[in-house]
Amino acid sequence: MNFRNVIFILGWVLNMEAVLMVPSMVTGLIYQERAVTALLWSALLCLAIGIPMSRIRRKNTHFRIREGFVAVALCWIAISVMGGLPFLFSGTFTNPVDALFETMSGFTTTGASVLTDVEVVPRCIIFWRSFTHWIGGMGVLVFLLSLFRMTGGSHINLMKAESPGPSVGRLLPTIQSTAKVLYIIYFGMTVLMVVLLLLGRMPLFDALTISFGTAGTGGFGIKNDSLGSYTVYQQVVVTVFMLLFGVNFNVYFFMLARKWKNAFRCEELWWYLGIVAVSILTIGWNIRGMFDNLGQAMQQSAFQVASIITTTGYATTDFNLWPETSRSMLVLLMFVGACAGSTGGGMKVSRLVILLKTVKKELSQFLHPGRVAKIRMDGKVVEHETIRSINVFMVAYLLIFSLSVLALSFDGTDMITNFTAVAATFNNIGPGLEQAGPATNFAMFSNVSKLVMTFDMLAGRLEIFPVLLLFVRDTWRKF
Amino acid sequence: MNFRNVIFILGWVLNMEAVLMVPSMVTGLIYQERAVTALLWSALLCLAIGIPMSRIRRKNTHFRIREGFVAVALCWIAISVMGGLPFLFSGTFTNPVDALFETMSGFTTTGASVLTDVEVVPRCIIFWRSFTHWIGGMGVLVFLLSLFRMTGGSHINLMKAESPGPSVGRLLPTIQSTAKVLYIIYFGMTVLMVVLLLLGRMPLFDALTISFGTAGTGGFGIKNDSLGSYTVYQQVVVTVFMLLFGVNFNVYFFMLARKWKNAFRCEELWWYLGIVAVSILTIGWNIRGMFDNLGQAMQQSAFQVASIITTTGYATTDFNLWPETSRSMLVLLMFVGACAGSTGGGMKVSRLVILLKTVKKELSQFLHPGRVAKIRMDGKVVEHETIRSINVFMVAYLLIFSLSVLALSFDGTDMITNFTAVAATFNNIGPGLEQAGPATNFAMFSNVSKLVMTFDMLAGRLEIFPVLLLFVRDTWRKF
Repeated sequence: MNFRNVIFILGWVLNMEAVLMVPSMVTGLIYQERAVTALLWSALLCLAIGIPMSRIRRKNTHFRIREGFVAVALCWIAISVMGGLPFLFSGTFTNPVDALFETMSGFTTTGASVLTDVEVVPRCIIFWRSFTHWIGGMGVLVFLLSLFRMTGGSHINLMKAESPGPSVGRLLPTIQSTAKVLYIIYFGMTVLMVVLLLLGRMPLFDALTISFGTAGTGGFGIKNDSLGSYTVYQQVVVTVFMLLFGVNFNVYFFMLARKWKNAFRCEELWWYLGIVAVSILTIGWNIRGMFDNLGQAMQQSAFQVASIITTTGYATTDFNLWPETSRSMLVLLMFVGACAGSTGGGMKVSRLVILLKTVKKELSQFLHPGRVAKIRMDGKVVEHETIRSINVFMVAYLLIFSLSVLALSFDGTDMITNFTAVAATFNNIGPGLEQAGPATNFAMFSNVSKLVMTFDMLAGRLEIFPVLLLFVRDTWRKF
Repeated sequence: MNFRNVIFILGWVLNMEAVLMVPSMVTGLIYQERAVTALLWSALLCLAIGIPMSRIRRKNTHFRIREGFVAVALCWIAISVMGGLPFLFSGTFTNPVDALFETMSGFTTTGASVLTDVEVVPRCIIFWRSFTHWIGGMGVLVFLLSLFRMTGGSHINLMKAESPGPSVGRLLPTIQSTAKVLYIIYFGMTVLMVVLLLLGRMPLFDALTISFGTAGTGGFGIKNDSLGSYTVYQQVVVTVFMLLFGVNFNVYFFMLARKWKNAFRCEELWWYLGIVAVSILTIGWNIRGMFDNLGQAMQQSAFQVASIITTTGYATTDFNLWPETSRSMLVLLMFVGACAGSTGGGMKVSRLVILLKTVKKELSQFLHPGRVAKIRMDGKVVEHETIRSINVFMVAYLLIFSLSVLALSFDGTDMITNFTAVAATFNNIGPGLEQAGPATNFAMFSNVSKLVMTFDMLAGRLEIFPVLLLFVRDTWRKF
């Protein structure tokens, strides 16, 4: 392990976090809230730790996979610990575990909350809470990457650890320019959404925070009923943008470059849209009796389906009360997740599609044992290496999932609560069912359970291996 | 598809089923029950269909993988359909779906029942019901195989489809002699168990039927409280034998051959025993408050753990009422299952161990990208092909599992019932939790749900692919 490199990057991330607290402080000044000092002290603390670390002398500036993975995991832990300080300093939380849970939930774009009453919290703190979604959505390090020059291969080793999905593509000759374009798309779509919400007469503060939560597929609501009290127009805008932010950003990149063929050849996109359409129609039909008319049922179904499959986690109604078929479908969607290369979590549509294709291939090999078949995606052969890593991901996923559910069971909460709470945090969604449902929050869990779920959120966001690597002794050997 | 070969083997399996009904008829004669005629008519019907089929002229007697898989799947469907006739003819069931469900549950050694009152059913029918467990435990075709001479490779292609676990080993030079030895071990252990139960003053009828259910890891009880009303000695004997029948039979083979080293080098065995020990202790401690003393709690824990991990499904108490941690652990054990090469179901311990090793290997490859690591089991390198097929198995498993839970949700039953009912049938266990718990039965499900679970039981027993192959159009092409 090249410790100096890791310390260097940790320092820069903390410096960046201090800067990222500025917009929240501005909010506090506008609303003349005392809590602004909590943000100020937190930012100063970040700098006090970050500046010395970022000045460390490095002999070898190269990041290997090992340093990339460990650096990413530690950076995410560091920003979550430091990002929780404003909650503690402002008195929003008194329990440090709650502050860590809430911030990790923010940065990992989960949106599971331990706040029992959001509406009494100062606005600058709420702004910071929603802003963490926006920062976490595209990745903390990918952002830093686009600013730094690094030796060959370093960027990809850091990006691999932070970017969701089975493989990292380079759309432009360098990773840096790719990252920049992706950030521009992200920024542009967020601005567009804010404008559309403002046109629908939503207050600026609400429009900003809700857009942050949508863009990062986060899901922290700023009201106790999440998005239930907004108008149909506003809910529809959010529905559409949740779905848009769940799409592989490569599609938008190709569209900007007017490479329409490339954009629409993306198999994952069609599967994603297909799953969304089938789910909306099935659930809409299933819940039609609970609403005034089928149109309203479909609109509510669309919102919740979009919210769950993209792992955003906003709610406009308490879907925990929906009939069993709808509930089961939503639970299944929790695992599907959004597209790779989007800001969403979950297993990712492309992973599942590739896995499905392995089953199809296996069946055909029983019939034609001699034939050599290859799995293709978007017309290209999927490397054996990619399939292997997807399989291993699945195994590690199921293992962590099972152990987490077991760990939560010691609280004595019922199995559906435990199962869906883990599903909601591990897949970075937010609400689950029963006691972890959209009408409640995660405050009633014990500290141990909260820490387990904090781990799950991080493991889910970084797709497991960077986090698991922290627990391997060999990782920490100095060579 | 070489249809003639398939018809030939189907015919012989039906003939064999008629013969296998004889012990049940003898039971009926002893107890002078009228229901014996139901068995007689069923046997005659089997012969009436089976004899003409088994006399078909075959040009090519070779079984390819394709014919092997399809033949096995169709044979299991055929014996379950015909084996359900005694239930219908005797008036035990009036609904054919119930008869099919019960018989499939018997042959696949699941033990999930739709009988609401077992104690009023004629003894010869109960005998047949338990006997199906014993037949299904070691496989219907493997038995036939040990009688027939076949062209090279045919045996292995049939055996592959019917034997549980990731790979089929040949302990002796020919598959036939291997199968014979395995049957002798199976028979011998069953006899030993009957004797031990008789020594504990259990009536012969009970001793036989309970031993059939234990040997096949089936789990049909012959009383409404399953095994709750038997003595501690009798329960302990059953506990021990459930665990013994969950061990890979190769271990016993090596023991008989006095190859102790081979026997105890079996990694799967140690994992299996380790999981059992940890589970018994954890659950026993967790439920200690519900029993008079810790010893009793441990005995009850041991019985239920053994019953679930070996996928037998007997119960001595209503574990649905146990605390959440115990319930969650039992649900996890449902998926683990017994050892490969045993009569048990589930995913199999060895599959999970190999999968765990792939995760460990992946982590070490992040640290040492250049190093080529191999996965080893029992000291031998695990073939890439084996790992691939385990991965594909897992994917297909999860897919069928999810769709089945979704299908059951249309009944409106709660999620825990649906989830555990599918877990209990797909893993060939028997009871689940809540409405599918050990104190109830599967009678309240709709016909559609029953058929879905009938499919799951078969898919679980044949480890998915033989059954899935029936749905591929290419399978049915004549070439």
